Amino acid sequence: MGRIAIIGLGLIGGSVGLALKRAEPKNTTVVGYDDNREVMARARRAGVVDETEPSLERAVREATMVVVATPIAAVRRVLRDIGPHLQDKCIVTDTASTKGDVMRWAKQELPERVYFVGGHPMAGREKAGLQEAEAELFDERPYCIVPSVDAVGGAVNAVVGLVQALGAKPFFLDADEHDAYVAAISHVPLISSVALFNLARHSNAWPELANISGPAFKDLTRLASGEPELGHDIFITNRENVLHWLRRYMAELQRLSELIESQDEEESLFRTLAEAQIEREQFLENPPERVDARLKMEMPTASDAFMSMMTGALWQEHAKRAQDMIVERTRIGVESEAARRRRLMEDEDD
Amino acid sequence: MGRIAIIGLGLIGGSVGLALKRAEPKNTTVVGYDDNREVMARARRAGVVDETEPSLERAVREATMVVVATPIAAVRRVLRDIGPHLQDKCIVTDTASTKGDVMRWAKQELPERVYFVGGHPMAGREKAGLQEAEAELFDERPYCIVPSVDAVGGAVNAVVGLVQALGAKPFFLDADEHDAYVAAISHVPLISSVALFNLARHSNAWPELANISGPAFKDLTRLASGEPELGHDIFITNRENVLHWLRRYMAELQRLSELIESQDEEESLFRTLAEAQIEREQFLENPPERVDARLKMEMPTASDAFMSMMTGALWQEHAKRAQDMIVERTRIGVESEAARRRRLMEDEDD
Repeated sequence: MGRIAIIGLGLIGGSVGLALKRAEPKNTTVVGYDDNREVMARARRAGVVDETEPSLERAVREATMVVVATPIAAVRRVLRDIGPHLQDKCIVTDTASTKGDVMRWAKQELPERVYFVGGHPMAGREKAGLQEAEAELFDERPYCIVPSVDAVGGAVNAVVGLVQALGAKPFFLDADEHDAYVAAISHVPLISSVALFNLARHSNAWPELANISGPAFKDLTRLASGEPELGHDIFITNRENVLHWLRRYMAELQRLSELIESQDEEESLFRTLAEAQIEREQFLENPPERVDARLKMEMPTASDAFMSMMTGALWQEHAKRAQDMIVERTRIGVESEAARRRRLMEDEDD
Repeated sequence: MGRIAIIGLGLIGGSVGLALKRAEPKNTTVVGYDDNREVMARARRAGVVDETEPSLERAVREATMVVVATPIAAVRRVLRDIGPHLQDKCIVTDTASTKGDVMRWAKQELPERVYFVGGHPMAGREKAGLQEAEAELFDERPYCIVPSVDAVGGAVNAVVGLVQALGAKPFFLDADEHDAYVAAISHVPLISSVALFNLARHSNAWPELANISGPAFKDLTRLASGEPELGHDIFITNRENVLHWLRRYMAELQRLSELIESQDEEESLFRTLAEAQIEREQFLENPPERVDARLKMEMPTASDAFMSMMTGALWQEHAKRAQDMIVERTRIGVESEAARRRRLMEDEDD
């Protein structure tokens, strides 16, 4: 095969090295480079890469493929710095979490005699650094592939080969689609996690909240422990999509809030929760097949009717059991209690 | 000790049985009751309880302690039904996720000759049912104890003994505090999880979103798989607190949204993410000690200054690496791109 250069030996770059080593590619040398010399020395000692080189130029100049696995903010500079030293027809790929800016940087900074194919393994983790790297990181994970318009088929196939060697599942899409989709399933979850953590952390009741918090709080705030550098770069390179999906998220929260607030919507509230449960279980057991965008259609009426029947039956059962609570509950009792609770919370509102 | 009756043999009631069995209490019989006879038979066969009884009345009439572990909506009826059959000085406790209504129901439905001490183990799981029960469920988990005003010390101590036998850590608070706190660290996370799932599930791009989603999406939407019955009952018995904290959550999301939107706030955005990371790591490694509410004070200025210094240094380092991205990024390029992305998203806004 040749010589693969990995630029940036953190969690992702290090895991690429380990996964390639596990795949035992024939006649291939993996060379690593990192700005941090100590990290490079550790990577070499631990066998994450076969060799390291003291400069970017030397790391890439004989490479048949270059994998840029630096923080997003460093990608442009790396592309600019390696451009003049790349062989003709060298295949360059990256692992950044957003693709629109990266594809533009590649077009601006790389010479036309090389091929760029964007990549993004859906396999993050909140801890960064070489010490977190592992050969299994990409196993069975989706790996987005975003070819540049002028990348030849051979270059794209080579990146597919890399992705398969890493144990991941290639998933083709264009940069706009990619950035819109990851905003919904990755970047808004990050914001939601930070906001949930801040909500509790910045309350005067934090010592109590921290002490009684269970696994739900820990799991849902997990992403708040992510590297601030990664989050920052994601938000500024995917601003419009993130804001779009964040507005939709807040609208959905508002809708749920209104269902909870209205004493006449208890059945709708129950149905909403029951639908989410049923649909998430379906997603886990039997994820939807990807369909061509032009063939997409709304969920058919038959399916709506089925869901309505399912949740209706569940509600009947619950309402029968819950009759006392729902029917006998007095509005007056609840409201005077609410006033007391508001008093308890007043110091929070400052 | 005597005879402990567990009413409701689902995840929580079943786990109470198994954890008690593991604790091997001397001279104690654990009797179980469930509305579902088939569940009762399985609990007896699996040794979750020593005995079962064919009626609520028989299950509780010789009990020294009764643990009500039914869905919240059934608690009131159970308290009403068992009241007349309880021995004098019987200790009644429960495991419901909200405490205000439960404490009122206990006062209304139980005779004065018995003692009620509310309880809430902070150890849920999205899967319910006896088959999910395990002896270790409560190990090292906080267990909220909410004594009724007229519960004698002996009754409270007996419940502390139960909690310790289950392997959990007792945590005293009153019903108002409890319901306010769990709204923040448990009920708002549930809503956030359902909203995140719906955001993706109800998009036309769902097949793509489902296929590229990684562990972040799965973890953060986990609570959407919870029992709709539990969520529903939580929201209607803790409405005011949930709405209060949900408003605060949406305000924090709005604040983060503004930081992301403003091109002049990139450093603040970075600092916000860096603070959340540092503070969450502190929380995991060294959770704050609970302090008396009257002694609570704002975070001291010295600590603010320290955080500012920490995040400032991180930002300098990042900004140096990210210079190209941050300085050379042209507003014009970003905005025309944004227009294209909006087109891509238009069908989402219906």
